[in-house]
Amino acid sequence: MIRAGIVGGTGYTGIELLRLLASHPEVALSTITSRAEGGKRVDEIFPSLRGQIDLQFTDPDKATFDGCQVVFFATPNGVAMAQAKALLAQGARVIDLSADFRLKDIAGWEKWYGVTHASPELVPDAVYGLPEINREKIRNARLVANPGCYPTAVLLGFLPLVESGAIDLNRLIANAASGVSGAGRKAESNLLYSEAADNFKAYGASGHRHLPEITQSLADIAKKSVGLTFVPHLAPMIRGIHATLYAHPTVQGDWQSLYEARYSSEPFVDVLPARSHPDTRSVRGANICRISLHQPSPSSIVVLSVIDNLVKGAAGQAVQNMNLMFGLPETLGLEDAAIVP
Amino acid sequence: MIRAGIVGGTGYTGIELLRLLASHPEVALSTITSRAEGGKRVDEIFPSLRGQIDLQFTDPDKATFDGCQVVFFATPNGVAMAQAKALLAQGARVIDLSADFRLKDIAGWEKWYGVTHASPELVPDAVYGLPEINREKIRNARLVANPGCYPTAVLLGFLPLVESGAIDLNRLIANAASGVSGAGRKAESNLLYSEAADNFKAYGASGHRHLPEITQSLADIAKKSVGLTFVPHLAPMIRGIHATLYAHPTVQGDWQSLYEARYSSEPFVDVLPARSHPDTRSVRGANICRISLHQPSPSSIVVLSVIDNLVKGAAGQAVQNMNLMFGLPETLGLEDAAIVP
Amino acid sequence: MIRAGIVGGTGYTGIELLRLLASHPEVALSTITSRAEGGKRVDEIFPSLRGQIDLQFTDPDKATFDGCQVVFFATPNGVAMAQAKALLAQGARVIDLSADFRLKDIAGWEKWYGVTHASPELVPDAVYGLPEINREKIRNARLVANPGCYPTAVLLGFLPLVESGAIDLNRLIANAASGVSGAGRKAESNLLYSEAADNFKAYGASGHRHLPEITQSLADIAKKSVGLTFVPHLAPMIRGIHATLYAHPTVQGDWQSLYEARYSSEPFVDVLPARSHPDTRSVRGANICRISLHQPSPSSIVVLSVIDNLVKGAAGQAVQNMNLMFGLPETLGLEDAAIVP
Amino acid sequence: MIRAGIVGGTGYTGIELLRLLASHPEVALSTITSRAEGGKRVDEIFPSLRGQIDLQFTDPDKATFDGCQVVFFATPNGVAMAQAKALLAQGARVIDLSADFRLKDIAGWEKWYGVTHASPELVPDAVYGLPEINREKIRNARLVANPGCYPTAVLLGFLPLVESGAIDLNRLIANAASGVSGAGRKAESNLLYSEAADNFKAYGASGHRHLPEITQSLADIAKKSVGLTFVPHLAPMIRGIHATLYAHPTVQGDWQSLYEARYSSEPFVDVLPARSHPDTRSVRGANICRISLHQPSPSSIVVLSVIDNLVKGAAGQAVQNMNLMFGLPETLGLEDAAIVP
Repeated sequence: MIRAGIVGGTGYTGIELLRLLASHPEVALSTITSRAEGGKRVDEIFPSLRGQIDLQFTDPDKATFDGCQVVFFATPNGVAMAQAKALLAQGARVIDLSADFRLKDIAGWEKWYGVTHASPELVPDAVYGLPEINREKIRNARLVANPGCYPTAVLLGFLPLVESGAIDLNRLIANAASGVSGAGRKAESNLLYSEAADNFKAYGASGHRHLPEITQSLADIAKKSVGLTFVPHLAPMIRGIHATLYAHPTVQGDWQSLYEARYSSEPFVDVLPARSHPDTRSVRGANICRISLHQPSPSSIVVLSVIDNLVKGAAGQAVQNMNLMFGLPETLGLEDAAIVP
Repeated sequence: MIRAGIVGGTGYTGIELLRLLASHPEVALSTITSRAEGGKRVDEIFPSLRGQIDLQFTDPDKATFDGCQVVFFATPNGVAMAQAKALLAQGARVIDLSADFRLKDIAGWEKWYGVTHASPELVPDAVYGLPEINREKIRNARLVANPGCYPTAVLLGFLPLVESGAIDLNRLIANAASGVSGAGRKAESNLLYSEAADNFKAYGASGHRHLPEITQSLADIAKKSVGLTFVPHLAPMIRGIHATLYAHPTVQGDWQSLYEARYSSEPFVDVLPARSHPDTRSVRGANICRISLHQPSPSSIVVLSVIDNLVKGAAGQAVQNMNLMFGLPETLGLEDAAIVP
Repeated sequence: MIRAGIVGGTGYTGIELLRLLASHPEVALSTITSRAEGGKRVDEIFPSLRGQIDLQFTDPDKATFDGCQVVFFATPNGVAMAQAKALLAQGARVIDLSADFRLKDIAGWEKWYGVTHASPELVPDAVYGLPEINREKIRNARLVANPGCYPTAVLLGFLPLVESGAIDLNRLIANAASGVSGAGRKAESNLLYSEAADNFKAYGASGHRHLPEITQSLADIAKKSVGLTFVPHLAPMIRGIHATLYAHPTVQGDWQSLYEARYSSEPFVDVLPARSHPDTRSVRGANICRISLHQPSPSSIVVLSVIDNLVKGAAGQAVQNMNLMFGLPETLGLEDAAIVP
Repeated sequence: MIRAGIVGGTGYTGIELLRLLASHPEVALSTITSRAEGGKRVDEIFPSLRGQIDLQFTDPDKATFDGCQVVFFATPNGVAMAQAKALLAQGARVIDLSADFRLKDIAGWEKWYGVTHASPELVPDAVYGLPEINREKIRNARLVANPGCYPTAVLLGFLPLVESGAIDLNRLIANAASGVSGAGRKAESNLLYSEAADNFKAYGASGHRHLPEITQSLADIAKKSVGLTFVPHLAPMIRGIHATLYAHPTVQGDWQSLYEARYSSEPFVDVLPARSHPDTRSVRGANICRISLHQPSPSSIVVLSVIDNLVKGAAGQAVQNMNLMFGLPETLGLEDAAIVP
């Protein structure tokens, strides 16, 4: 059994991590912190976990994580960069679900996130935790930067095309819609039910933090810079990300076969039959990305890519990374079907 | 491994049964029928089950269920009563998720359901599959009538009070709201998104089929007739039933202790702290009923009872019954936490 | 033209009042205050009002309301009681959409609302603004206490039965569900989309502030005390209140005719054909209460009553009261149809 | 008063037309047909219109439309093309909300819609009813082809850029999301609440009927062919279309000023401040298109364009066209504010 701890367990990625770890056969959760709810039982705050988790939230100032082999950060940006170093020093491996270690370009990170990075020396060794491109590095990583939800959906959707070198890398477009849980469990008025329900809108259309995270990985894969326009949208649903990706091919090709071959041995990427339309509910609660391909004209390829933002886009991918880091079967604890309807 | 079959697998109880059985460690699903989708792969109709279920739908006229030890009916009312007899004769045990075998009063059943019962001779031996009142009978049953979703929520909510004899049985009120999936996967215009969303309404306020099912069990428990007013409502959500039950006590009592004692060993009934308000999402996808108690005035008790209509109100309860019938641990395959948010 | 002002225009009753007054032919809106948004244009905060309202929010400390003939309070509880007196003194008439002047029992009010009343001397002359019971008093009122949303739906639903004296007044039950906007535009985590969507729950089942408001009016009508159990619920929709009312008749009667006669000349109460089921969307955006009646058994009457909580339950009723107070046609500016779908 | 008739009044564009015409001061609605509901009162089918519309549905085989000066078709595709001719012959002017007369290329129309056109001789004189490009022609039209909802949002969004000649016309992308009412009031299982709620998906990504309608107008404006990729999506909301448009500028320019100038005298197109994000609810129920502009990089322009698919995307635009055709103020009956929340 792996002893695990969670820093910041009261957000949506936190409760999702709790749900997944509660049924993981090889994990013993020993500590979970919350500044707001310290001392309260986890299932008092989340009654859905009654009978599943027998723990109290610990005040973060009192939590030691002694004996924890792995610590997850399910915190707002800026927390993990301050605390990861000490945990690594005491021998724990760290999986950070926030954005603190995702960008190699520290100046760029500081511009987008508006703060000075507290641990730039850790950044070079942090492994970007997208198993489909970094599986071997993740196995040996001590610090994993778990990808953002949009980047996961967009990168898995573009990956085979970018690897193939068959598209115009200067004019990529990623149009994505996210469920409201992607914005976190923050009491902000624009996230209220009466504001977000029966409504749809773009945000960050002039620039969004996930853009450099996506282009960093795309450029790594392409080995040259890429030009991407990324527009996220807020959709009136709880979970789910739907990315609609547009690319212009520079040669002709059998894109369906390309994708099927690339992902044939990936347990958590499912290439649908050509011209399918995956819906977000088909991945609700499940750690899987479903992808389909369209070519409406010779000059245009459309890739549709869906994930559950809290699972393959956050907590599920974190568990997948943990499985890799500890030599467990990669799918352990992540086999459940999506919940439909 | 238990060999299982499903008649009618394309409705919402059918897909939920598929989801639960796909991960049940002691069940091998061998046959699933559908008149509309015969010959198609299950995961073509339900992409959420890709990688989970490797079966095709069989045309019901060609399905034999040979070797099946248990057959589930996830069909509209009227199908099981015509087919159960032959399956029982070939040695299968039958769990009927429809209403065909729920009422002992056949004339009453025929009035409410508007058809002649095809197998009245099977009705006396059919066991009403609410484990919390009929556990031992279910173990030995050959034919289980799986309860309706409203009756499950209402009966579990009223049960301790009615057993205690401490309330006025002539003036019971059950006000309940259901998610739209409770109406089934029927292409009816009143179930369209644009009709049911952002909307709330009662239906069947002058009389609903689930009323006699509820009063039959309440009267069995009370050993006298009961007077119940039952008004169901359609709520703009996919899953969930919320029952708000009103009773007038004839004596004073410690209702919280009564409920906690009654359900202390029940794995799937959770009594919350006094004056709590269970929400339907706290049971979303899980086989559990959560209950809380209020006494706003000396003359009034309010019981709140929530279930997922497709799980504890249908497919989950059916699996729970199967576990009992085959001597398996009652909770096997039903341990997963609810999905929140 | 009536010169009108609004105190506190950034909540949901505030924006609804703005929407209705913008198209009211006899109102000139001159001042609207907001502490948070002082100095900003109204249509910057509410882009839906671009082209409709050409005003800025004024800081409440600088607002004078000079020349206003009527001032609406669309504020949280506790504001109007502090400010109404001065406005009345300068000649304005006041319509308070908050709860400050609804209860005649000041001690009771202070217990439910947890504060000392700042203007108890104004309470006796405040008129409870439900035109269907107080129309003549409203015409001459200087201070109107606009009813709460639940009380409006429940009172209009019970009114004819209580007036008739034909029911057991000790065992009334009001089970009601409200859209989330009823809780106001407050950044509280339980009102977030990801918490309230696809979810249903009761709240205040042991006691809710609207209970004494309802029983005060019912007792006035009945001329004796009444026993009411009231349980509100939060439904996953933006607007709408649905009240399901239960009463036990002490005599037999033609309740349908009773209701049709009682409301035959009411412009904003619509009695549906017997055994109908009004849905909340049939009143979405409209100043109307729709009611239907059921008698599922001789000992039980069920009344269904729906309103839009922001219109007939708040801003629309306030305009209706204003029309009465200023001798305008009662329906002026309130004739628009509900928006369906 | 203009005497008006409606063919096919039971779909969503039909009920929306009824809502708008009920309060239009210069229209007398004399006839409305429905094959399914012939003989029933309009407000029996749509209780939201009780007190607003005092008409019965007429069986279409018995409807004459004698004396009607204008007849609206709110029918599925294929009906207007069969019946418009006779109505035109008897002197009525026709506004067709279906797709029958939108495409000038009849062979293309027949390919996309899968039927032979019944009145190709009427097509040349049909005026495409987008007032922002065809206002003068509409004034004199006898037959108006009311635009589709997606084309309205996309065309108004692209119009100034295409007119300006400043973008690469071969690589236009229109990514759009629609509320479910856009699919009509059809009892299809994919439109059920339990299928469409909490879900998001693309459809028609390999080709959609609205594509040729959009490119026809864009090419007319540009006076050359255009290359457009159009992917529509189904969003879990009742009303609203959100179009996210991507273009690559061939020169630099002040796009904000371009749009503000182009639309400065348009009553129903609202250009928001630069870098705004219009949400669909800001146009809910209102006949307006709100547009904003972003330039995330020098090589990329993003236009956001929202409408209510049933108003500016259907019934509202039809009334706007009627106003133009009959010399009324263009905004008559269309002034109401959007409903928020």
